Amino acid sequence: MKPANKNIHVVIMAGGVGTRFWPLSRESSPKQMLKITGEDTMLRQTIKRLHDFVPQENISIVTSEKQAFDLNLHIEGLKKDKGHLKIIAEPFGRNTAPAIGLAAVYLKKAKPDAIMVVLPADHSIRNEKVFIETLKTAVNCAEGGHLVTLGIKPSQPETGYGYIKTGARGKGREVRKVERFVEKPDIKTAEKYVKSGNYFWNSGIFAWKTSVILEEIKKYMPMLYNGLLKINKAIGTKSEKEVIKETYSELENQSIDYGVLEKSKNVIVVPADIGWSDVGSWAALDQVISCDANGNIIKGNAVDIGSKDSVVFGGERLVATIGLKNMIVVDTADATLVCPKEKAQDVKKIVDELKKHGREEHLVHRTVERPWGSYTVLETGERYKIKRLFIKPGARLSLQTHRHRSEHWVVVSGTAHVTKGAEIYNVHPNESTYIPISTKHRLENPGKVPLQIIEVQNGEYLGEDDIERIDDDYKR
Amino acid sequence: MKPANKNIHVVIMAGGVGTRFWPLSRESSPKQMLKITGEDTMLRQTIKRLHDFVPQENISIVTSEKQAFDLNLHIEGLKKDKGHLKIIAEPFGRNTAPAIGLAAVYLKKAKPDAIMVVLPADHSIRNEKVFIETLKTAVNCAEGGHLVTLGIKPSQPETGYGYIKTGARGKGREVRKVERFVEKPDIKTAEKYVKSGNYFWNSGIFAWKTSVILEEIKKYMPMLYNGLLKINKAIGTKSEKEVIKETYSELENQSIDYGVLEKSKNVIVVPADIGWSDVGSWAALDQVISCDANGNIIKGNAVDIGSKDSVVFGGERLVATIGLKNMIVVDTADATLVCPKEKAQDVKKIVDELKKHGREEHLVHRTVERPWGSYTVLETGERYKIKRLFIKPGARLSLQTHRHRSEHWVVVSGTAHVTKGAEIYNVHPNESTYIPISTKHRLENPGKVPLQIIEVQNGEYLGEDDIERIDDDYKR
Repeated sequence: MKPANKNIHVVIMAGGVGTRFWPLSRESSPKQMLKITGEDTMLRQTIKRLHDFVPQENISIVTSEKQAFDLNLHIEGLKKDKGHLKIIAEPFGRNTAPAIGLAAVYLKKAKPDAIMVVLPADHSIRNEKVFIETLKTAVNCAEGGHLVTLGIKPSQPETGYGYIKTGARGKGREVRKVERFVEKPDIKTAEKYVKSGNYFWNSGIFAWKTSVILEEIKKYMPMLYNGLLKINKAIGTKSEKEVIKETYSELENQSIDYGVLEKSKNVIVVPADIGWSDVGSWAALDQVISCDANGNIIKGNAVDIGSKDSVVFGGERLVATIGLKNMIVVDTADATLVCPKEKAQDVKKIVDELKKHGREEHLVHRTVERPWGSYTVLETGERYKIKRLFIKPGARLSLQTHRHRSEHWVVVSGTAHVTKGAEIYNVHPNESTYIPISTKHRLENPGKVPLQIIEVQNGEYLGEDDIERIDDDYKR
Repeated sequence: MKPANKNIHVVIMAGGVGTRFWPLSRESSPKQMLKITGEDTMLRQTIKRLHDFVPQENISIVTSEKQAFDLNLHIEGLKKDKGHLKIIAEPFGRNTAPAIGLAAVYLKKAKPDAIMVVLPADHSIRNEKVFIETLKTAVNCAEGGHLVTLGIKPSQPETGYGYIKTGARGKGREVRKVERFVEKPDIKTAEKYVKSGNYFWNSGIFAWKTSVILEEIKKYMPMLYNGLLKINKAIGTKSEKEVIKETYSELENQSIDYGVLEKSKNVIVVPADIGWSDVGSWAALDQVISCDANGNIIKGNAVDIGSKDSVVFGGERLVATIGLKNMIVVDTADATLVCPKEKAQDVKKIVDELKKHGREEHLVHRTVERPWGSYTVLETGERYKIKRLFIKPGARLSLQTHRHRSEHWVVVSGTAHVTKGAEIYNVHPNESTYIPISTKHRLENPGKVPLQIIEVQNGEYLGEDDIERIDDDYKR
């Protein structure tokens, strides 16, 4: 086994929203940032899984500008422990082809001969050792100038995935030539595919030289290539961000599969038996979490009597279920979903409904992570809003003012160090203070234990955007 | 038709909890106090339905001591509008025989020749006019010395009810002699019953002379009769409450049907075609509320895609449902129920589970009605609790102290008139005040609009029972 290759760079695609996991996923908490499959979030698991494969500074994450701030916050701990992680922010998502092109341009500039491994941020992989071995095989093939895709050996006749038809297995080696990409099949066709042994699921995990993928993009996606050339020139200049935005606004929404791989003659498949799942919906959860004796996955504050083959994802509120069969129940602080497993794909239709009616349950959770801690909206009423603030030891919010609201703070635990106009003072548990409208203020936790504050806001307008930051440790 | 008879008294049986309607029903909000079937609660609908039958001062409600305070609060408006309503409080429930016996004793003392009509508080009756006409027929029969029960003409072969077999219809009159009471039948037997025309559902609606029912109790339930004699002697004395409690503790739990009606030779049935339902569970809701075109009953903050024949009872939080069939989803502030209609009877098993584990979701709702308004628990944390208080114009809480907690009050609307030790002052919107531990205090709304206050409690113990009332408008 060769040692970890310094020339290998991993690009993690983390731009998706994962509306199929609503109400747990929100625009501000996309699927990859959720702990659906285990103790940690899918994104952090994806990064940790690479520990023996590349040093962490050789990992980049492509995401949208909108998600970049939260994502950075999300991986803060990993960065502290294991070193730098580059975030590449797209002005907005345009599917995988532009994302991969953009990452390749950055990478080629830094290391012209780099091998690029592309991984989705929100897949589950059970056999991590085999996965790393398979990636190494893929990298070896990529060094030979191929576009390499990991082909998952189908474990069941799945009709929800695209397949790759390959040639027969070559002598002595597992790697296969691609014959063609095939669309999602019907069940009978899928059964034939599984039997034949020459069909694989398209995993979205790739390896190639940056120079090779850019050449192939040039050949099959000339519009994208021209855009990437413009971006390449602008990198490091003052206009970098602007040029990327301009270029992106003219790009088509296109996947690398459709745009390049299905057309290229240079694609090979490395078969992968790695316990893979793309965890495509609530119904796929039983592929990645073990069920109880009745086939259920039951989490959180739940009481069940006699359900079978069902998913109950509760939170702090009680969810009581009786005699469910093949059902999904997901409960969050402000929204509950109930549907049969066979309708799990339609969850995105609910999100569409919410968007259409200008609602907010698809945007943010009641609890919102912040660099200084988190806040939870406990109630929103006419002219008032109540929040619980949780401030980490040593952290402080920005020095700020609000034009439309005053704030009452009651400390329930920890000590608050408060700036209010020219005054600076401490507020202890069971004490309160008041910040009038338009008064410069700052809240800080100078202590060793978390600071918890109940904030009652009063005012005509109580939106999060009524904030003017005068000074901010987090440069917002 | 004879005019309303001053000698008719209605006794409403309101001692049940209705656990089958959890999580909407709680010990403190039993089924009869819920607005399940229409704009008003079942109990208030039951009272209002009698408007053209008896004057309101001729109505008594039998309930448990535990429920009496809340029940009194619940019918306050009706008392103001239409006059006195007597509440008879049992020390604890012992089924219908003791409840009816107790009411009969009180009634006979006040009016020895009264006719007593017994109604359950939690049934639905669609044809109110026919119902009143039927009651008048029943009263006429009762005047003849019979025990009269309303027999509901079965509309479907129901296996969940007991039936009464009657003799054939007499010439020129609808009233029938009882042949026998029969247990809940299987479906085939139920179908025969419906066809025969001589079987009726046992509605629990009765009419008799108080003197007659007491005689029959004497005959068939001598133990109960002896108890009632003791109570009869104690009425009006200092030991009245004590004697009732003592007597009750020795009584068997028994229904009037089993204890008297099934044994007596003096029972007649008045057939009733009144659009009756006992609304026995969430699954029975479609008998009393009209469904939409897809057979659904959907209420509250709900978004549905393609469900059929389902009940979705939401509140303020969003409930999203997709493709449900014959399902029940009930969402409240602190608990959600999901089960198929066919399991609706098992909801009480969930309540048993909650009791067994010392939980609280079967006891009270987050929002609790009080004579002065209501409060809502927004959050309970370690050493703190947050409540929203809603105080009616002109109302005030008791003068009180707490031994274990201090309270911060932030006024969000209205004006608070605050007593704090020797100080008396007003607090306006966007102002706050602080009540230290062990300080005598009172909160009053002197204004014309509701007063809303956010209360943050701090302390080691935050139970509702940490309250010492020094003065109380509501004599608690």
